[in-house]
Amino acid sequence: MKQFTSIHDVENVEALIEKALFFKQNPIHSYLGERKVLGMVFFNPSLRTRMSTQKAAYNLGMDVIALNAGADGWAIETKDGVIMDGDKPEHINEAVQIMSSYCDLLAVRTFAGLQNRLADYSEAILTKFIQLSKVPILSLESATLHPLQSLTDMMTIRELDIKKPKVVLTWAPHPKALPQAVPNSFLQWVTKSDAEVVVTHPEGYELDIQFSQDCKIEYDQNKALEGADIVYAKNWSSYSAYGHILSTDRSWTVTKEKMALTNNASFMHCLPLRRNMIATDEVVNDSVVINQAGNRVWAAQAVLNELLNYEKENQNINEQGRFAYR
Amino acid sequence: MKQFTSIHDVENVEALIEKALFFKQNPIHSYLGERKVLGMVFFNPSLRTRMSTQKAAYNLGMDVIALNAGADGWAIETKDGVIMDGDKPEHINEAVQIMSSYCDLLAVRTFAGLQNRLADYSEAILTKFIQLSKVPILSLESATLHPLQSLTDMMTIRELDIKKPKVVLTWAPHPKALPQAVPNSFLQWVTKSDAEVVVTHPEGYELDIQFSQDCKIEYDQNKALEGADIVYAKNWSSYSAYGHILSTDRSWTVTKEKMALTNNASFMHCLPLRRNMIATDEVVNDSVVINQAGNRVWAAQAVLNELLNYEKENQNINEQGRFAYR
Amino acid sequence: MKQFTSIHDVENVEALIEKALFFKQNPIHSYLGERKVLGMVFFNPSLRTRMSTQKAAYNLGMDVIALNAGADGWAIETKDGVIMDGDKPEHINEAVQIMSSYCDLLAVRTFAGLQNRLADYSEAILTKFIQLSKVPILSLESATLHPLQSLTDMMTIRELDIKKPKVVLTWAPHPKALPQAVPNSFLQWVTKSDAEVVVTHPEGYELDIQFSQDCKIEYDQNKALEGADIVYAKNWSSYSAYGHILSTDRSWTVTKEKMALTNNASFMHCLPLRRNMIATDEVVNDSVVINQAGNRVWAAQAVLNELLNYEKENQNINEQGRFAYR
Repeated sequence: MKQFTSIHDVENVEALIEKALFFKQNPIHSYLGERKVLGMVFFNPSLRTRMSTQKAAYNLGMDVIALNAGADGWAIETKDGVIMDGDKPEHINEAVQIMSSYCDLLAVRTFAGLQNRLADYSEAILTKFIQLSKVPILSLESATLHPLQSLTDMMTIRELDIKKPKVVLTWAPHPKALPQAVPNSFLQWVTKSDAEVVVTHPEGYELDIQFSQDCKIEYDQNKALEGADIVYAKNWSSYSAYGHILSTDRSWTVTKEKMALTNNASFMHCLPLRRNMIATDEVVNDSVVINQAGNRVWAAQAVLNELLNYEKENQNINEQGRFAYR
Repeated sequence: MKQFTSIHDVENVEALIEKALFFKQNPIHSYLGERKVLGMVFFNPSLRTRMSTQKAAYNLGMDVIALNAGADGWAIETKDGVIMDGDKPEHINEAVQIMSSYCDLLAVRTFAGLQNRLADYSEAILTKFIQLSKVPILSLESATLHPLQSLTDMMTIRELDIKKPKVVLTWAPHPKALPQAVPNSFLQWVTKSDAEVVVTHPEGYELDIQFSQDCKIEYDQNKALEGADIVYAKNWSSYSAYGHILSTDRSWTVTKEKMALTNNASFMHCLPLRRNMIATDEVVNDSVVINQAGNRVWAAQAVLNELLNYEKENQNINEQGRFAYR
Repeated sequence: MKQFTSIHDVENVEALIEKALFFKQNPIHSYLGERKVLGMVFFNPSLRTRMSTQKAAYNLGMDVIALNAGADGWAIETKDGVIMDGDKPEHINEAVQIMSSYCDLLAVRTFAGLQNRLADYSEAILTKFIQLSKVPILSLESATLHPLQSLTDMMTIRELDIKKPKVVLTWAPHPKALPQAVPNSFLQWVTKSDAEVVVTHPEGYELDIQFSQDCKIEYDQNKALEGADIVYAKNWSSYSAYGHILSTDRSWTVTKEKMALTNNASFMHCLPLRRNMIATDEVVNDSVVINQAGNRVWAAQAVLNELLNYEKENQNINEQGRFAYR
């Protein structure tokens, strides 16, 4: 695997899930990362992703450099061709080439501005990283996808060991406008499994068709939940009225009563979770979210392991890459 | 030792001091920490604690993840049962369980708000960490105690090698309202030693009786200092008029003249120290504060070593803990 | 080498450049840094310096503690003799002694305030670090010098393999007032090589004579560029009208047309570089700046290696240093 930015980078999804489950049982297995450095660049905050990926790297013997872009480093200009006479002293063209020359793997977390759909869905920053990096790129969430979370989710579903589960992705209310990255990515992965997938949300919250095309859409949440084996709750802002909050309807909050409609379903969420907005305390306390979040380590470790393997096999090519710009 | 949050967690105080002194002579002794991760979560800033604990962890072969809560991660809701529709997207219930699942030991620094005595003295955040963590908790200072500092202080006093020393804890002026954590904790530890302990401060600065009950209280600073072998200076805000500054009387600043009243006493302070407020330049320059602060490494190393030993012996229990919330 | 704060600390410049080139070919060569800690203290932001020095330390097997002064730690008072009743709770006298007692090497990045020339050129903060540290000090840029950058620059020029190159340091426009550290330091190093050095800038931008005395100064940029083998562009604020911007003349921007005046020169810059201010996109894209910035790792590794060697030979002296202030 030469990079990990979406499911399309993964040759064998099943094997990757198996690898993650293997590392959960055998955390300290490989020393592939010794004297290798993982660079992590954050354009927005992160707790689980930051800590779990760092732990995964340490399990493989890697060293880690974590950088908060803008705070630790310089504000970065991402547009080409501009006269840089404003607030941003560093251009992404140099920043990425250089950061990647200081690391063996480069992980980046970008975000959706939620102002301009075309801009977000073009993944401008992540694309720059992919184009300019001399080393493999790992997405720690991008404007429209969160593949590390989705791999974790698939691993967690696998652990539940249900044949052809009915998986319901339900929208839930939230006070702020959130990106579509987690639901987009979840659908991308879960529809490749044997699950029956239903998406439920108020009208106007339809996700980009490229992600939802293999799912049933059901606007009646109660109907959607009937017989569910897994309930995956998440808020997102509107894709059509881009970035807007169209509903704060608290009747969409997942309650014990709603869970009673299911087939004794497991409740999942990527966290952070606003209690009594997304789901009630009772639902959260009886959920699998802690095991799910804990699995982030093993998903990251499986991905880092694959990228290190790729890098090992391609070391000579990378060495040559060092002399770009001459 | 299954956690380190106060002296009450320590079975054998003497042995722990001896261990700290041992590590000072033998910094690179044990490899107990190899492929183990120390997570450090800071709810307020820190220089000595941050660096010295990190150095101690490295001496034991550990890796470290340091997180500034709120800056690197998300703002954290600490109250139970609330509808999370405000500024704080993450609940402490999930945050602690998850952070602890990413680490082998979890260290946390909390602080006193100094608005509400009951809230501070209930140690709400630290208690959550203790209740919810799957791995041993290490306090890097809490709202009311600072046991790592106190262990360091006892080690430093031990190095002075004085039989039944007269130890005087003196209040000193400061422009800001400070917590009582350091003096509380110091009294908790020093009264367990063979020292004669005198506390001196302006009226109204009496500490919580649970900490001062075994000390003599003397409101005349000069009288208190007579014959002292050790002078430990510190500012704190009022406990009775909770969090208030009742005095900024600079006659309490420790001067060369005041030190002349003592039995050639050693001057101690936990740092950071405001020069010419707490004590004059002369007193600071002729003090043991640098050796004292340097000892933080060895105190932390002794504690981490004990916690790693505990964790090693209880690994199976921890593994089961991974599946909380299912 | 007992410290690295300017070229004057280097016994053998040639050997240091050779060592850096050696590490570029043999990154994982020495294990001198095992169980040693590099402390890095930043008084202002940094990307290249932070990441490249950290990578260099990891290549040598070191652990790293990186601290943003003021954000991670406390605001630091740097003046002696003051009554510390203001915003700064920590004095640099204690801070440096203590940070150095927690590390095996201490790296510090300070900055020019650009308000007071005497203050900046006295290097007050760096000098405190040198005076008070118990371990070797490494400058990560100071108010008036940037020796790690200059070593990198010399290494990059060496790779170009030109006998007696004509090196032109040209001022270029920039929207903010910048320090003179990079040009000062570059002249300090490049004038020790076999290069013919010309400095070109608008009148009023003359650098401190101690750095420019061995160079030709040419106020006509086009004339200066004629026959150049290397063009090193950099903005700086005025030394005589200290810290002021005297010109924003965009005719000084390095363009393809200007580069055509040279002897097919290589374009260098320390980065971050404001595109289309300092130089046009075309010039940057056809430059050696990425290789140059990449070389920061090897320069840092050579320096750390020398400092570790020094520290190894002087361990007993350092041990004694631990008991300053008694």
